[in-house]
Amino acid sequence: MNEKVISSAVIKRLPRYYRHLGELVERGVERISSKELSERMKVTASQIRQDFNNFGGFGQQGYGYNARYLYNEIGKILGLDRTYNVIIVGAGNLGQALVNYMDFERRGFDFIGLFDVKPSLIGTFVHGVEVSSVDAMEDFVRQHAVHIAALTLPRQHAPQVAAALVGWGVKALWNFTPTDLQVASDVVVENVHLTESLMGLSYNMKGRDLT
Amino acid sequence: MNEKVISSAVIKRLPRYYRHLGELVERGVERISSKELSERMKVTASQIRQDFNNFGGFGQQGYGYNARYLYNEIGKILGLDRTYNVIIVGAGNLGQALVNYMDFERRGFDFIGLFDVKPSLIGTFVHGVEVSSVDAMEDFVRQHAVHIAALTLPRQHAPQVAAALVGWGVKALWNFTPTDLQVASDVVVENVHLTESLMGLSYNMKGRDLT
Repeated sequence: MNEKVISSAVIKRLPRYYRHLGELVERGVERISSKELSERMKVTASQIRQDFNNFGGFGQQGYGYNARYLYNEIGKILGLDRTYNVIIVGAGNLGQALVNYMDFERRGFDFIGLFDVKPSLIGTFVHGVEVSSVDAMEDFVRQHAVHIAALTLPRQHAPQVAAALVGWGVKALWNFTPTDLQVASDVVVENVHLTESLMGLSYNMKGRDLT
Repeated sequence: MNEKVISSAVIKRLPRYYRHLGELVERGVERISSKELSERMKVTASQIRQDFNNFGGFGQQGYGYNARYLYNEIGKILGLDRTYNVIIVGAGNLGQALVNYMDFERRGFDFIGLFDVKPSLIGTFVHGVEVSSVDAMEDFVRQHAVHIAALTLPRQHAPQVAAALVGWGVKALWNFTPTDLQVASDVVVENVHLTESLMGLSYNMKGRDLT
């Protein structure tokens, strides 16, 4: 694979390719042309070829790509050829939804810890994972290889919890709180800002005749 | 305001401006310079001025912008100067998390209906909203002004439910299922693909020394 810098727009499109190819592989499809993939994904075939050329083209020959090969290669680029241990801070509805969501497990993301401050939640199990007190979090993180911490706690506690986690060695934060976390440059942050997503909807609905 | 086409990159940044300005207004800040906003948001001051110039500049004069005016104007652009009725299809953890999340209500998104197929959920209340059977959904949508439907149901049911909702007149879908919905061009779809977000993390962690 080339070591050149790939634009972030291309990178952002990879998970969607990966999802569609996974569906095709599941359905037993062996080969697919960029034209077919294009029709399925509603992007142009030339866009697809251009995107794939960033990674050496994935050996399209004759009639299209080998679907499973393409799926695996894009998976490797996305770092999905290994597993990640994930903890969740905040065992409310959203934290529970993440643990229960089978798709993550399937992709190699294992939820190994779930933390909360609420006495009524501590000691309960969600999808086989016990909810522990946040007071036990430092020991847990120091004793386990925690690759990713998901933050599904109230916004006002997010900055201090993020700082603590990073201090204990966690290098990736999946931030669901509506705040921008300030972390060292070697820490990866991925934000899911649901309110901002909803504003994308309202913006696009603007000027329409709504009652 | 200009009627010219605003780039989608600018539009994507507006909710973040709106969030930061809202925090400033809450804290009683009256005026803010693009330099201060820039330091707070970690974007350049010239980027901010460029973005705002798309909307006529928002009357910066002397020392900076009037924070509340700027907040309100960006809110109008985002379509937040009105309220939206939202229903949720799928009353599992994720659907419940959305209803419970106070931030949406504050921004003018009112959850007026929650639907599921599970007998154990139907008739229960989440944050004051009763869970109804999906069988009652058509009548509900026809009798209420439903502006947005959030889809937090299992993926395999998403396409048919989306098609039904659109057939009953719903014009905006907030799609949390890992699938691309095919809808008419006058229907707005905003996707929250959590697995793809997680893949953004794993991609950025790649090549690091993880144990």
